[in-house]
Amino acid sequence: MPAIAKLSDEDVKFLETVFPGALITRPEELNVYASDASLQSGSPLCCVLPERVEQVQALFAWADEKRIPIYVRGHGTNLVGDCVAFKPGIVVSTARMDHILEINKGDFVAVVEPGVNTAQFQAACEAQGLYYPPDPASVKGSTVGGNVVTCAGGMRAVKYGVTRDFVLGCEVVLPGGDLVKFGGRAHKNVVGLDLARLMVGSEGTLGFISKLYLKLIPKPEASATVMAGFGSYQEALGAVGGVFDKGILPCTMEYIGERIVKLMNEEGNVPWPADKVRSVLLIQVDGSRETLPIEMRRLEESLPTAVWTTRGLGKEEEEPLWEIRRRINPVVFALAPNKHGDDAVVPRGSLVKAVDEFARISREYNVIMVTYGHVGDGNIHVNVLYNAEDPDEKKRADEAIHAVSRAAVAMGGSESGEHGIGVVKDVLLQISKRERDLMRQVKACFDPHGIMNPGKGY
Amino acid sequence: MPAIAKLSDEDVKFLETVFPGALITRPEELNVYASDASLQSGSPLCCVLPERVEQVQALFAWADEKRIPIYVRGHGTNLVGDCVAFKPGIVVSTARMDHILEINKGDFVAVVEPGVNTAQFQAACEAQGLYYPPDPASVKGSTVGGNVVTCAGGMRAVKYGVTRDFVLGCEVVLPGGDLVKFGGRAHKNVVGLDLARLMVGSEGTLGFISKLYLKLIPKPEASATVMAGFGSYQEALGAVGGVFDKGILPCTMEYIGERIVKLMNEEGNVPWPADKVRSVLLIQVDGSRETLPIEMRRLEESLPTAVWTTRGLGKEEEEPLWEIRRRINPVVFALAPNKHGDDAVVPRGSLVKAVDEFARISREYNVIMVTYGHVGDGNIHVNVLYNAEDPDEKKRADEAIHAVSRAAVAMGGSESGEHGIGVVKDVLLQISKRERDLMRQVKACFDPHGIMNPGKGY
Repeated sequence: MPAIAKLSDEDVKFLETVFPGALITRPEELNVYASDASLQSGSPLCCVLPERVEQVQALFAWADEKRIPIYVRGHGTNLVGDCVAFKPGIVVSTARMDHILEINKGDFVAVVEPGVNTAQFQAACEAQGLYYPPDPASVKGSTVGGNVVTCAGGMRAVKYGVTRDFVLGCEVVLPGGDLVKFGGRAHKNVVGLDLARLMVGSEGTLGFISKLYLKLIPKPEASATVMAGFGSYQEALGAVGGVFDKGILPCTMEYIGERIVKLMNEEGNVPWPADKVRSVLLIQVDGSRETLPIEMRRLEESLPTAVWTTRGLGKEEEEPLWEIRRRINPVVFALAPNKHGDDAVVPRGSLVKAVDEFARISREYNVIMVTYGHVGDGNIHVNVLYNAEDPDEKKRADEAIHAVSRAAVAMGGSESGEHGIGVVKDVLLQISKRERDLMRQVKACFDPHGIMNPGKGY
Repeated sequence: MPAIAKLSDEDVKFLETVFPGALITRPEELNVYASDASLQSGSPLCCVLPERVEQVQALFAWADEKRIPIYVRGHGTNLVGDCVAFKPGIVVSTARMDHILEINKGDFVAVVEPGVNTAQFQAACEAQGLYYPPDPASVKGSTVGGNVVTCAGGMRAVKYGVTRDFVLGCEVVLPGGDLVKFGGRAHKNVVGLDLARLMVGSEGTLGFISKLYLKLIPKPEASATVMAGFGSYQEALGAVGGVFDKGILPCTMEYIGERIVKLMNEEGNVPWPADKVRSVLLIQVDGSRETLPIEMRRLEESLPTAVWTTRGLGKEEEEPLWEIRRRINPVVFALAPNKHGDDAVVPRGSLVKAVDEFARISREYNVIMVTYGHVGDGNIHVNVLYNAEDPDEKKRADEAIHAVSRAAVAMGGSESGEHGIGVVKDVLLQISKRERDLMRQVKACFDPHGIMNPGKGY
């Protein structure tokens, strides 16, 4: 694709006409749209902030004709560089397409624009007794559109699934400007190829999602949490299977590894006996107020190897337990100033084997590593802590993270369960060239000139 | 595509070599593979029954080179002609690729060949305390592979979703013979485009699924059913929303319309007071033995407009209630000897409006129509009963069914929630030419010479 280094006066004039008061070209302002949470930075030619789909259509007709790269972004919380304009191109921010168009209590369907904040959308649903479960860690900062193109996961995926499972349909602007609709508001729909779900997790490489049809479910009356402490990570991870074996499907099942528990014990203010507890599980169930005390007791009984447990029934009692979970991120920075966060997935039966292997990798590369995360679906967050100012340490940290990806794939897992590939990971670690080429061919059906987020994903 | 009318001696020799003892060419035997549950019939050149993926690869390399159409079939329960060779071609039966390769209790993953029977697979899972929820009506007769390529639904979709929601990955033979793998056994996986889910519901148009990785969940301890009778279909369908409003997500929510209840009342042996009950809801919840009596009571309380209810706790008590549901299919044939079964979906909030509209259509076309089905997800089964020997009646029945599809789409629903398009429905009723063309382009990436199930779906 012939890259252009600069917008001509004519280009700027066109963009000003299509996006009056919504075109950003000043470098100081443009900087805001140059990077994302991957901390990588690109070189956007400009940023536009459409409010109406017709503006996006006009832009996409023009950009496709001129072969100018397009980078769609929500709130830029992407961790793998998906929002970054590595080749000069136009950033399209969904920030002004942030309306909840409909929350339909009869249909259990919501229709939203891509730029709506996920937490705000969830709150609006819950105010009506409805529930949109996907809860990526970025939920307060990210957008529903961003969640969809990355197929965001989160803690509740164990019971409720990921963002994909709540996308019924989407309206999409294709390169060239055509407006199409895949799926719709029907809860069941088997008409033609499932292009709606193909958009999910496509990392901005296929088109611009201008409208989303989302499935809602009834909001559970209440929830309850059991926190359990174990003498070792082997015992904590070994206990995971016991919960499922009792026929319990928790909404959330989080693990905190030994190194992090040690840091927390040292910091103090932990609810568990610090001399006994080396690893922790945090498990939430939801349902009706009447039955939750029973479910909570069953859950506790399913954890016979725990050396300590505590419980919280209802939000107020649960909150202090989840506050511990939120301390993970700040506490690990006691180990080093910089962090590589990984999101490998392993088959749930291989959790102990995986954490053992990750520990071996940390020794091999001589790096500081911690593990925690969504073990209910085998999604272990591996963090490597390092000092970026030490080039040798940084190199070892980079290599260790790649070794973690390779190990997860070798166990039959995935190198990414939540973040995606972007420019940070190598898709060929997990899939064959033939499979990648097929993906590229499919992309070319949507985007024949390759203007959508070039170089990302696959 | 240049069709061939007959296999040459050389072709037969090749096929005999690849499929020793598994090539069917005798017309009498071949007839078994000529039609499916749509009752349409085609003209297969032969049928092969592979046992190993390598045989399929060899066939697909050869057939792609020779441009010979391929029709993959499981047990032929498809209702829209997806298994039928309308152009002369080769039928590939999955009947001998029917092995459960693995049911992994640690990973909550099963690996199966496409030809395994769904009910047998479910039983094998449940014997280990695991659960594979998708339960299309054809469950005892159909195959998991067939369920996947049609994205089969069923009664439990309200709570658990459809087949798509349990497909983690698949191994696929592409035209040309290449073997690829999409997704895998990881419960979360966001690596590249989601081609695994694109295979789901693709109606055999993209490739041959040789292996499936399926997600399992813990088997709920028990279930409970409430059957509720109402004075009218408006009251029955009006009560649906009330259940969800109470925060209850039943696994199953079935409706029986007035005409069918009338037939059942006339037939006698109904559990409800025949003078009061004109429409019925049948609702199932599942969970732990301890909490189900509470859930069942909550469910009954959420149905204040019911004129009569009964309940069953546990399989033995529930069975007679579900037996009533199974009487629908035989009882409607009292109305006429032939039946068009439709599977339209409407937004859940439009159930009453939809059944009103369907009644209007039955008057307009002067046909006998009954309604029942999976109202929990808006999936209403509309049956038109007619006498096929009366050409005028048949014509009106055909037209009425198409009018039902149009009405569902006009309400924001779907013309098909479960059966698919095949050759029976018109995809352009619901999607635009641009959208269909995009699907065809995507198909061409998988199947450049158009040998996979030509003329079907989209």
